[in-house]
Amino acid sequence: MEIKGKSVEELEEVASKIRERIIDVVSRKGGHFSSTLGAVELTLGMHYVFDVNSDPFIFDVSHQCYAHKLLTNRWEEFETIRQFGGLCGFTKPNESNADYFVAGHSSTSISLAVGAAKSIKLKNQDRVPVVMIGDGSMSAGMVYEALNELGDLKLPVVIILNDNEMSIAKPIGAISKYLSKILAGKFYQSFKARVDKFIRNNMPEGTTYLAKRLESSIKLITPGILFEEMGIDYIGPIDGHDIEEIIDTLNIAKSMQKPVIVHAKTVKGKGYKIAEGQHEHWHGVGPFNVEDGEFIKKSTQKSATSVYSYSLLNLAKKYENVVGVTAAMPSGTGVDKLIEAYPNRFWDVAIAEQHAVTSMAAMAKEGFKPFITIYSTFLQRGFDQIIHDVSIMNLPVVFAMDRAGIVGNDGETHQGAFDINFLRFIPNMILFAPRDNETLENSLEFAYTLSSPCAIRYPRGSFKELDFKATNFELGKAELLKDGNSNKLFIGYGNGVSKAIDVEKLHEEDIAILDLRFIKPIDKNILKTLSDKYDSWYVFSDSQKQGGVASAIMEALSELEITNINIKSFEYEDSFIEHGDTTKVEESLGLLAKQLVLLVDK
Amino acid sequence: MEIKGKSVEELEEVASKIRERIIDVVSRKGGHFSSTLGAVELTLGMHYVFDVNSDPFIFDVSHQCYAHKLLTNRWEEFETIRQFGGLCGFTKPNESNADYFVAGHSSTSISLAVGAAKSIKLKNQDRVPVVMIGDGSMSAGMVYEALNELGDLKLPVVIILNDNEMSIAKPIGAISKYLSKILAGKFYQSFKARVDKFIRNNMPEGTTYLAKRLESSIKLITPGILFEEMGIDYIGPIDGHDIEEIIDTLNIAKSMQKPVIVHAKTVKGKGYKIAEGQHEHWHGVGPFNVEDGEFIKKSTQKSATSVYSYSLLNLAKKYENVVGVTAAMPSGTGVDKLIEAYPNRFWDVAIAEQHAVTSMAAMAKEGFKPFITIYSTFLQRGFDQIIHDVSIMNLPVVFAMDRAGIVGNDGETHQGAFDINFLRFIPNMILFAPRDNETLENSLEFAYTLSSPCAIRYPRGSFKELDFKATNFELGKAELLKDGNSNKLFIGYGNGVSKAIDVEKLHEEDIAILDLRFIKPIDKNILKTLSDKYDSWYVFSDSQKQGGVASAIMEALSELEITNINIKSFEYEDSFIEHGDTTKVEESLGLLAKQLVLLVDK
Repeated sequence: MEIKGKSVEELEEVASKIRERIIDVVSRKGGHFSSTLGAVELTLGMHYVFDVNSDPFIFDVSHQCYAHKLLTNRWEEFETIRQFGGLCGFTKPNESNADYFVAGHSSTSISLAVGAAKSIKLKNQDRVPVVMIGDGSMSAGMVYEALNELGDLKLPVVIILNDNEMSIAKPIGAISKYLSKILAGKFYQSFKARVDKFIRNNMPEGTTYLAKRLESSIKLITPGILFEEMGIDYIGPIDGHDIEEIIDTLNIAKSMQKPVIVHAKTVKGKGYKIAEGQHEHWHGVGPFNVEDGEFIKKSTQKSATSVYSYSLLNLAKKYENVVGVTAAMPSGTGVDKLIEAYPNRFWDVAIAEQHAVTSMAAMAKEGFKPFITIYSTFLQRGFDQIIHDVSIMNLPVVFAMDRAGIVGNDGETHQGAFDINFLRFIPNMILFAPRDNETLENSLEFAYTLSSPCAIRYPRGSFKELDFKATNFELGKAELLKDGNSNKLFIGYGNGVSKAIDVEKLHEEDIAILDLRFIKPIDKNILKTLSDKYDSWYVFSDSQKQGGVASAIMEALSELEITNINIKSFEYEDSFIEHGDTTKVEESLGLLAKQLVLLVDK
Repeated sequence: MEIKGKSVEELEEVASKIRERIIDVVSRKGGHFSSTLGAVELTLGMHYVFDVNSDPFIFDVSHQCYAHKLLTNRWEEFETIRQFGGLCGFTKPNESNADYFVAGHSSTSISLAVGAAKSIKLKNQDRVPVVMIGDGSMSAGMVYEALNELGDLKLPVVIILNDNEMSIAKPIGAISKYLSKILAGKFYQSFKARVDKFIRNNMPEGTTYLAKRLESSIKLITPGILFEEMGIDYIGPIDGHDIEEIIDTLNIAKSMQKPVIVHAKTVKGKGYKIAEGQHEHWHGVGPFNVEDGEFIKKSTQKSATSVYSYSLLNLAKKYENVVGVTAAMPSGTGVDKLIEAYPNRFWDVAIAEQHAVTSMAAMAKEGFKPFITIYSTFLQRGFDQIIHDVSIMNLPVVFAMDRAGIVGNDGETHQGAFDINFLRFIPNMILFAPRDNETLENSLEFAYTLSSPCAIRYPRGSFKELDFKATNFELGKAELLKDGNSNKLFIGYGNGVSKAIDVEKLHEEDIAILDLRFIKPIDKNILKTLSDKYDSWYVFSDSQKQGGVASAIMEALSELEITNINIKSFEYEDSFIEHGDTTKVEESLGLLAKQLVLLVDK
């Protein structure tokens, strides 16, 4: 939709239409909601002042990009948002040239803008990168690393700081407080207080006028000082729903030819009264009734997250040295319940996975038992810290990786595909996994007893209920769930166990099923024993194949010098996995039980 | 050494003795030098004011910890610093209780202090964590993530910012400039300029006195404002070589019972005239002559780093879209030569691996060919960015991983053991490696031609010269260096090829040698062909075993349904590798050619 040249009134009309469309589609299909509603006018401003065909439009995390999609030839297709085969919920260049970059993890935008700005300078072009970043993304270290270089190089970049004072959940951290102070105008007050005191004590009588003027000079120089001291110009705060003010300000910012932060105050959920100003609840939603905001009921099954949450709560009640963090996903991980019950032992440290890991390493050193609960995909941000700060010291930190495996509609940036692969080679690390709700509960009790770092994983959504009784974990011990009378052995890990069971049920033979339970240390004894009886092994795990579960088994066999086993892995092949309903995605990968059973005899 | 209760004069004497000892030992044995010399008085201050037996002493990176080691019962043992079986060059708790944490990667200290402070509060103790962090470590995002929580929670932590205005190389980035401005007093000036202008324009005639007083009020409120706005109190700058000033300030800071930064100005290399104020050159050194500062000559062999450096320079001359970054290791990686020759195409982004990776991803999108040159161990910090920003977009970024394999004296925090393992499962990634200087040169030319992300690795020090002629790389093609007439096949990857050759020479049989060249895509054709002729395979690579090279080969064989091959891996076993001379370390691991040859027939 071409919006350049439209009047402010016309633009306001466009904003209304965009909101209508978002509310209509998301209420029926689900999707990111409140942040994208809050960013409609800012997005219009970007498109009005900048040229989407030439200026890099960089959306941080990009869950706020729906208006941008609607403005760039995807009005009808928007109906398919986050559905399998449909539009991606995030920006995606191979969906549209208007999408500059893939984004799904936070705080990458300013680094991208720096790279774009360096390129533009080298190519001697006059394009200007424009970034939209939420206040919630400002807590991650990457942002600071990028500002540090940008403020030094002074390349032209316009950064729209879309501040709804809440991030995904509530605002956390000093930076967040700093921004809130600015928005509330309290910044001047606290800063000024120190000066006022001096003035009162030193100004001659009768110079009230002078004092007043002095006050306003301090206002002039202070609001964005934190950014200005880093070499970035600051404009704001402005009203992020006032299109005229947005356009005027972006025009100024663009013309400055240096790095500028435009600080805009917005309301999350703007335009849908029920969601306005709400926290985490309306961030990403399933289908809901537009009239009353009631969610259309989903599965009544207990989610793995909720099982984790109450199990950890029980553990925390029982052992007072249990502590923990999450990184900006309190309700997503169920850690909100822990923070509520034990605000001095559980923390949301905001989007700051590196700091989350290392700060908990110190608590482990001090005798506490930290549970670090982070989605599998986001734990990638703490990778070096897991090695350097936790594992070299062999500290008893527990990594609980929620949303391991295929996550569904969020798609390729969010798949929990890699955690086994990036943890398995780290010395001292213990890797094990529950297969259902009961063993998830048991896994926490077991994790508590370990004196080394360990990691457990569990899927988004719910485990299946299994016919096998839950048993306790024993270090390095697999569990043979059933013997078989063919030459085949099914080996499942974590959520892969129920897949193995399903496939076995569909298969005509009576096949032995092993719950591997531990990838590290792996149960060599049982593998050796089973190799005498079965020589055709099939591995089931919702994780990446290379260096993964089957690979660990092959390494063990190699060390045992057992060479007669044929191993087939049903893990993820070597490509990124698209978004969509998990069943449809699995089907596209050939990973449904009914598909796998056909491969067993091939 | 007990220093509490000593007079300032006595402490100055201790400082001199410590410096003598450091200069004496490091000049003979090598080690970190200039930063540790610069931190002597600050370390004395820490030990004087805080209690090393109770307060957590947290040294960031910890290459500045030698004075601390000398003060804590390691005076004699210091002779063995960084030698095999001797003291570690970094803090290490299993060497001494005085060492709170392992550190070798930068910018973890404030996170550790936050974890320690949370623990102390929960345990209701009155210990206070004290951190020493260099200005060079202030560029990494982790620091900001930690300050963000610390400034919010306001827990008592004393942070000594040891500012020698240079980090390892020269200072980079806006934060660094900000700190320098404070040290030089220029902060007030630039800040004040804006106010002065207002005063000039608004003050009535004859109020010079008032204007002057106003100036000083602004001084009072401004120097550490960046930190203060983040909720951290700031004191400074102080003279980091004035013991009295240090002790007085630390006493105040400790008593404040909240987070405080004490900003101390120090001189790198202090006490050894030749090194004073010098940049990277004196950071970590080999043995040198104390009289004239001349280094005692080492090997005349070309290092892999220097081969990389001139090869990349040639490539940059030839193709003007070649660009690149390093992260605070310009001379360590040889990228200094590129920055010198092409200051608009190559950058040192300071310690900021996350930003380094993502900013270059954007340059690749813009049509450039970025070379990201980072030590294998430090690239761990950019792990998520490699997946999320480079590989999902399938951008042609080259990762050049220097110091892959055993790095020698730096030890466990620095080993380049894991890069194959953490990159191999990432979709779109191409992994290959040169075996000697010539193929390293070829590998850059080849990397230039690729349209996907790729990573090459090469060792610290020098490749061996090999008898096999260098050939060009072909995507996914291994190279059979020689046939054999036994059932054995030696497979080498990267620097492992020369190890395979050495072992073959020592072995009585005539053994086939394959240079695998590519781990991904792996050469299945040649593996299949060779499996017909050889059934006992031995894998040589200076990398971690789990999920590594042998594992990749086993996966390929499994997919080919070849089961008769016995594979033995001579990669690193599942533990962290200690420091010391590389040959001695390899010997301790049983990885010398003369040791491996005995295992071949076992």
